Amino acid sequence: MTYSFSARGSNEAVEEGPALAPKFDAAGLVTCVATDAASGDVLMVAHMNAEALARTIETGEAHYYSRSRRALWRKGESSGHTQHVTEMRIDCDQDAVWIKVEPAGDRACHTGRRSCFYRAVPLGKAPDASLTLGFVEAERAFDPAKVYGGKGD
Amino acid sequence: MTYSFSARGSNEAVEEGPALAPKFDAAGLVTCVATDAASGDVLMVAHMNAEALARTIETGEAHYYSRSRRALWRKGESSGHTQHVTEMRIDCDQDAVWIKVEPAGDRACHTGRRSCFYRAVPLGKAPDASLTLGFVEAERAFDPAKVYGGKGD
Repeated sequence: MTYSFSARGSNEAVEEGPALAPKFDAAGLVTCVATDAASGDVLMVAHMNAEALARTIETGEAHYYSRSRRALWRKGESSGHTQHVTEMRIDCDQDAVWIKVEPAGDRACHTGRRSCFYRAVPLGKAPDASLTLGFVEAERAFDPAKVYGGKGD
Repeated sequence: MTYSFSARGSNEAVEEGPALAPKFDAAGLVTCVATDAASGDVLMVAHMNAEALARTIETGEAHYYSRSRRALWRKGESSGHTQHVTEMRIDCDQDAVWIKVEPAGDRACHTGRRSCFYRAVPLGKAPDASLTLGFVEAERAFDPAKVYGGKGD
């Protein structure tokens, strides 16, 4: 099946025009950043193929492409933590998408956390063996093994 | 030159441990999302190789890897629109980085805009030829040709 995205035109057309002409990479994917529509926090970074992008646009529910499972992935299909999309943006060269979402259950990460970005990297010196990530969000709201049964989301 | 990131361990170590063990892809890159430290808006999505990641951690100034120029890229080296990093996070499987930045000149996009995500994709029906992107931020603050002389940032 093909999807009705526009063909890639000139740089000017891609950057300044009104046509959606995504730049899928060699694997057929664009990068997608999902932020929490309420807090603005980055929840996750994932990928969309043409079908995932089209279904997200059509349904307003986040769909991704799972590179590990090589399959379309409706977010929350296993966990129930669906993502209702309130806004979608595309970047200048159209190889990245930003969606603002309302995450069901206030969870996005397969580890059971609100956001996948639950650890901070300390700044100010060259990274070496003493660098220690700081947990910003330690608590897991659920036991991933029970929710996914080892499948992931 | 090598950089002192930890070796990748078990999933449990990567996801729940305190060691920075980035998962660089086949091209040696991780994805980086930069958001505005003040507004929370996503400014850009770019890539970092090991050197760009190490230099960003060390200096607190955003460094990326330019895939088109195949070179380390200190953000703002041409445009002056540097990005001071106020916080860095890493995601569960450590293949994506989120940085909160203070963008000099309040600009991040090479088109002269605050954010690369200046167009909205309408939601609610299957994408077809009638889909028209909406400009959220139309205005360019500068003429890219004058700032970059055709080089980009």
